[in-house]
Amino acid sequence: MEHRADPQEGAHQWHRHPLIPCTPEAAGGEGLVAVLLATPADVSMELTPGLLARGIKVIDLSGAFRLRAPEIYTHWYKEPHTQPELLAEAAYGLPEFCRERIAGARLVANPGCYPTAANLAIGPLVASGMADRKAGIVCDAKSGVSGAGRKASLKTSFCEVTDNFSAYSILDHRHVPEILQNSSLFETELSFTAHLLPLDRGILETVYFRTQAREAGELVEMYQKRYAGEPFLRIYPAGHVPDLRAVVRTNFCDIGVKLDGATGRAVVVSVIDNLVKGAAGQAVQNLNLVLGFAETEGLL
Amino acid sequence: MEHRADPQEGAHQWHRHPLIPCTPEAAGGEGLVAVLLATPADVSMELTPGLLARGIKVIDLSGAFRLRAPEIYTHWYKEPHTQPELLAEAAYGLPEFCRERIAGARLVANPGCYPTAANLAIGPLVASGMADRKAGIVCDAKSGVSGAGRKASLKTSFCEVTDNFSAYSILDHRHVPEILQNSSLFETELSFTAHLLPLDRGILETVYFRTQAREAGELVEMYQKRYAGEPFLRIYPAGHVPDLRAVVRTNFCDIGVKLDGATGRAVVVSVIDNLVKGAAGQAVQNLNLVLGFAETEGLL
Amino acid sequence: MEHRADPQEGAHQWHRHPLIPCTPEAAGGEGLVAVLLATPADVSMELTPGLLARGIKVIDLSGAFRLRAPEIYTHWYKEPHTQPELLAEAAYGLPEFCRERIAGARLVANPGCYPTAANLAIGPLVASGMADRKAGIVCDAKSGVSGAGRKASLKTSFCEVTDNFSAYSILDHRHVPEILQNSSLFETELSFTAHLLPLDRGILETVYFRTQAREAGELVEMYQKRYAGEPFLRIYPAGHVPDLRAVVRTNFCDIGVKLDGATGRAVVVSVIDNLVKGAAGQAVQNLNLVLGFAETEGLL
Amino acid sequence: MEHRADPQEGAHQWHRHPLIPCTPEAAGGEGLVAVLLATPADVSMELTPGLLARGIKVIDLSGAFRLRAPEIYTHWYKEPHTQPELLAEAAYGLPEFCRERIAGARLVANPGCYPTAANLAIGPLVASGMADRKAGIVCDAKSGVSGAGRKASLKTSFCEVTDNFSAYSILDHRHVPEILQNSSLFETELSFTAHLLPLDRGILETVYFRTQAREAGELVEMYQKRYAGEPFLRIYPAGHVPDLRAVVRTNFCDIGVKLDGATGRAVVVSVIDNLVKGAAGQAVQNLNLVLGFAETEGLL
Repeated sequence: MEHRADPQEGAHQWHRHPLIPCTPEAAGGEGLVAVLLATPADVSMELTPGLLARGIKVIDLSGAFRLRAPEIYTHWYKEPHTQPELLAEAAYGLPEFCRERIAGARLVANPGCYPTAANLAIGPLVASGMADRKAGIVCDAKSGVSGAGRKASLKTSFCEVTDNFSAYSILDHRHVPEILQNSSLFETELSFTAHLLPLDRGILETVYFRTQAREAGELVEMYQKRYAGEPFLRIYPAGHVPDLRAVVRTNFCDIGVKLDGATGRAVVVSVIDNLVKGAAGQAVQNLNLVLGFAETEGLL
Repeated sequence: MEHRADPQEGAHQWHRHPLIPCTPEAAGGEGLVAVLLATPADVSMELTPGLLARGIKVIDLSGAFRLRAPEIYTHWYKEPHTQPELLAEAAYGLPEFCRERIAGARLVANPGCYPTAANLAIGPLVASGMADRKAGIVCDAKSGVSGAGRKASLKTSFCEVTDNFSAYSILDHRHVPEILQNSSLFETELSFTAHLLPLDRGILETVYFRTQAREAGELVEMYQKRYAGEPFLRIYPAGHVPDLRAVVRTNFCDIGVKLDGATGRAVVVSVIDNLVKGAAGQAVQNLNLVLGFAETEGLL
Repeated sequence: MEHRADPQEGAHQWHRHPLIPCTPEAAGGEGLVAVLLATPADVSMELTPGLLARGIKVIDLSGAFRLRAPEIYTHWYKEPHTQPELLAEAAYGLPEFCRERIAGARLVANPGCYPTAANLAIGPLVASGMADRKAGIVCDAKSGVSGAGRKASLKTSFCEVTDNFSAYSILDHRHVPEILQNSSLFETELSFTAHLLPLDRGILETVYFRTQAREAGELVEMYQKRYAGEPFLRIYPAGHVPDLRAVVRTNFCDIGVKLDGATGRAVVVSVIDNLVKGAAGQAVQNLNLVLGFAETEGLL
Repeated sequence: MEHRADPQEGAHQWHRHPLIPCTPEAAGGEGLVAVLLATPADVSMELTPGLLARGIKVIDLSGAFRLRAPEIYTHWYKEPHTQPELLAEAAYGLPEFCRERIAGARLVANPGCYPTAANLAIGPLVASGMADRKAGIVCDAKSGVSGAGRKASLKTSFCEVTDNFSAYSILDHRHVPEILQNSSLFETELSFTAHLLPLDRGILETVYFRTQAREAGELVEMYQKRYAGEPFLRIYPAGHVPDLRAVVRTNFCDIGVKLDGATGRAVVVSVIDNLVKGAAGQAVQNLNLVLGFAETEGLL
């Protein structure tokens, strides 16, 4: 039988701890070896150098260190980058793409939620040459409301979201350069649009492209080889695709392929939980790598 | 083919008009005969005297003029009542209870949403003597999220409300005195608790009481006589009760009765749309009465 | 005060009438001039000839008479077409495309819900030459659950649908030939995928294409000219797109355009209520045309 | 990287095993010591004797063995009880009430979902004498849709349930005798009504009663003493109550108390997850007791 300090304030907040001051001095007692920053990008830029200087590893969940070029950061985040020298050092925290770099890094830039699902689906298509890049790749992305953060806002209020569905950041979402950079695409080659689903968590991305493959099985086989041994990637049999529930509350990314062999048009569906593989779960996965723990520790 | 000024800001807001300054001077041009105030109680108290002085009828949707005793207002609304002399004059805007007074009033206090569903169910039970008041009446009320207003708040954000259900204002909702006053009950006789439903609109109240009636049909017959000719009240056959959808987007209040004759325990279910019969629709119904229009004008 | 026959069986079913036998004999009393068939395709094929023979106009909401080629019908609906001679005669019931034919028709094939939103968006793009057909058009469609019909099914049960989102009929939805036919596209030019939204009504389609237009305004202007005077089409200002709520419970189709001038990639968002403009509302619109009533009668 | 047999059929069904024939012979290989029956009551009555005869312990999740009197079973379940001699032997599977009996039982009747939340709240009120039984106790219960089982049904289809809320089994739910029996109440003393919430899982019960207690703290203290050491009961500080999310996906039952000392009316709110503490979780808790494992094994 447990007691609760103030359950009325939201009974499901049972486990919340009191906030502690977020300066390196306050955070860093003896033996502190790593910090996960779930702070706005400008706060992350401010805190990170001090933490690194004290030998503390940093997994940053903001967009501060994901892009290699500071001018691209400035263009999309509408503010100068105050730590450009750290951009080259930061490892992009998508273990399936950058496992070795992460393991040896002082600073890991945890990926955005949309780019995680997008790169895991599109990266292998481009690298294998199985998608016709010049014909263009469309990524139609849909996310649950938690992707917008927890701050009270009319846009995410219940009465605005329920029974509704809408597109936003059409062709100009700031996660686009993160996808282009990590899947080796050019701007002309990707059309990305985000949508808001009336549910709390989960991202489903529907990726359209042209391929010279004749059967979905060829694409499935390519993904299987690419992700052989990956603990959090599940590739579906040809013609089958995952729904959101396949991954909600897990660190999995599930991928399925459908192909119309007669026309050469194909669709890949990629799903993650935006709060787990798209944020906190992947951060723990990166922490495990940085600290030399088993990569799946705490995640399976 | 129509154009939209700024559909991006919420496409469903198509019909919103620009806000006009809400002072009596700005509002009242030649020929203005009535105003509906959807303002906070303190603003209503401030605006109403000036409007009345200029011969303009006022239908006020706030709690400012619903209670007859200023000290009860002060207790529940946590502020002094600045226009106590208007309390005696104001007609309580529940047409099924106060039709004549409303028709002749300068000032109508539009009822609260919970009290509308509660009084329409409980009032006749008490007046007819068919509920055992001393045994106590329980009113377990559930409302959609729009009842909390449109202001952005963490409590009404999508991710907090969806998949959740909670009780609030247990035994101390400020709508309680409005029910006591209009159904002629004493404090000891009513237990009222509000709950938040994960849907946008609608109120369902489950009312428990003891009765000397032996069959539900007796209670149904009582309601039918009481509400004979009422355009917005629908009484269900004995043993049948309405669900929320029976009334959502309408000005109806639907009522059904279930009785366990062996034990003398009974349940009445009362439903309304909190935004229509519980607010704007009832305000139009009152406006129709005040201006001498057909009571159902614009509502059926 | 009204009574209800059996409100317990679903209080929101208040207005349901008893079913009458659906044979031409039973249906056709003196003076019957038109019938709306909301029957499965095979039943529509069976009933229609008899109704037409008695001089009764038919608006058919099934897929029976939408496609001009019987073999394409057979391929997608998995059954032979028993009335191929009626296919040439049937008018396709999209008034914005076939108004004159509908007005003079004995038989109108009311369009599918997905094709209504798709053709209204894509048709003008193709006809005007502003979409690069060879580069391919992607139509990523999302629908509420009522699109699946009212029959009890595990796939549309609350616990399966809520908090979930899924793609289905990827690249092989049977509405595809209806889009190809009416927007003058070839199979290689369209990639269409349907998705199931956790809400009850509404369709939003996100259409991706390449264009030689340099500004969204050019596309907006094209749509405005194409749909000038149309009572149910609303074109949004450049850069603005509709959400589902803009049209739910109405017969409107709202369309908005976003363009990335630098890359020549564009997105059109098209929304309808699948039960109104996508079904019953459009059927009434067609009935108005067939009977010579004002086209908007009962719909605005 | 894992493969899936048929993910299209519902990706979230990943872990489902093939069904095996449910006869004692098929089920019972060497070393089988216990069976959990999630079968309809009549199937449970048929299977249980054979399993017991072979020395296999049975945890039955149906209503077959919960009531002590066969005639009460027959009245509420509309069928004769075929194994009345097992009713006396069966332990009622509410560990907080019957821990010792369960630990020594061959047959455990896992409680219904509504009675679990109700008895844990009401039982101590009655046993302690702190509720005025003669004044009557009201239990207004609300459940998510999964409480209705997984079978496809129009009543639990998405479009019927979403945006709706309804009362059912008013004063005559078949779980009522299970509450009366285990909380030592008479029929005249309890009014119980069930409601259907538009969400998938969770039960919240609002219990109204009169008490001679003067402060909520007295009731809280009583519950704390009664449930001291219980691993799955959490009592909230006076004046605070749980919401559904406090317990969803857990085996906890959370209880909170609000009291109006001036009138002697009180409310207790009790919440559980109907699929965990209200079904499968409690079954595992009982299995742990029966087999001598730690009671919380697999549940915390």
